Amino acid sequence: MSPKPVLDSPWVIHALQQPTSWAWVEQALAHLDLILLDHSQCERKAAGVALNLIFRYPSSTQLVRQLTAIAREELDHFEQVNQWLERRGIPLASLSPSPYGAKLKAQIRRYEPDRLLDSLLVAALIEARSHERLGLLATHCPDPELAEFYQGLMTSEARHYGVYWVLADTYFEREVVSQRLAELAAIESQLLSTLYPEPRIHS
Amino acid sequence: MSPKPVLDSPWVIHALQQPTSWAWVEQALAHLDLILLDHSQCERKAAGVALNLIFRYPSSTQLVRQLTAIAREELDHFEQVNQWLERRGIPLASLSPSPYGAKLKAQIRRYEPDRLLDSLLVAALIEARSHERLGLLATHCPDPELAEFYQGLMTSEARHYGVYWVLADTYFEREVVSQRLAELAAIESQLLSTLYPEPRIHS
Ligand SMILES: [Fe+2]
Ligand SMILES: [Fe+2]
Ligand SMILES: [Fe+2]
Ligand SMILES: [Fe+2]
Repeated sequence: MSPKPVLDSPWVIHALQQPTSWAWVEQALAHLDLILLDHSQCERKAAGVALNLIFRYPSSTQLVRQLTAIAREELDHFEQVNQWLERRGIPLASLSPSPYGAKLKAQIRRYEPDRLLDSLLVAALIEARSHERLGLLATHCPDPELAEFYQGLMTSEARHYGVYWVLADTYFEREVVSQRLAELAAIESQLLSTLYPEPRIHS
Repeated sequence: MSPKPVLDSPWVIHALQQPTSWAWVEQALAHLDLILLDHSQCERKAAGVALNLIFRYPSSTQLVRQLTAIAREELDHFEQVNQWLERRGIPLASLSPSPYGAKLKAQIRRYEPDRLLDSLLVAALIEARSHERLGLLATHCPDPELAEFYQGLMTSEARHYGVYWVLADTYFEREVVSQRLAELAAIESQLLSTLYPEPRIHS
């Protein structure tokens, strides 16, 4: 396959510094079952990230309200992806993760209020990247029903990106948010600049 | 107030070894705002328990499916209790928990498969007790709207008790489940035999 232009999304263009390579799309399309299995784990983790933030900041009303909604939606996605796994006869299993998540998490500074800012922005970037990649799958996946499924999810992930960004903007100065987002986004793109050999949503 | 008979519930009678004391009902009714705040934390924790089990046993299809549904419902309850807090002008805040949860959790044996069995049964007992106590609030709460709210939730908690019990019964021999449930239930009742001085759902 030859390179094709990546999806154009107004939400995400601002956050992600480098688009996903065509190599990832080829790798993903060649291993859709593994991608589905990893995707299930991503949705589970996304629910866990939102719930952990609720546990860590139980008195922050806006954060609690918005992330309760996100956690519920991610669990809904988790269930939907698991139904796809069942439909395709893929048993639930644990996949070793790509280094992406752990390396991004390692960027979160340890003391407040930096910890909150970084946690929100790392979550925002992961949502933005998921949005972009689910969009690529929606565009290029040969199974029209699966493509439609990805199309539905990618919209939610863009909205989740927006929620995390707005929360950061609620609790921090706009300039501080923008600067730190740019720093983290540079690292995020760097982490994906070499394709991870195992097919993953974030390889 | 004089003692009144506790709720009669076919689900729970089998699991709980001692009914809740009238002293708890009096304490709770005298501090409904604190009880609502603690209840919010209970629902958040209930979602966390279900999600943690999904993370720990990602390949156990029945467990993942049933507990995804429970996690979503607990988040829904969490949101509903938070709406009650907002309505009554109670800001979200973190309350020190009663020793109940930690002491029950300490009963979970550390090695598999005991760890799974104990985790399911401890969760089952907490759901059963929540069912019983929300039922007492539903019966005795002077605010009819709040009473109706508790009435709705108590039904879900009874069902959650059932789900945890059925999962234990799926992965373990019936006799092993019954015996361990009786042991843990004795401890659970013991933990509540002295009223905790701070008003809590599980004081
Ligand atoms: Fe999602
Ligand atoms: Fe998301
Ligand atoms: Fe609940
Ligand atoms: Fe429950």
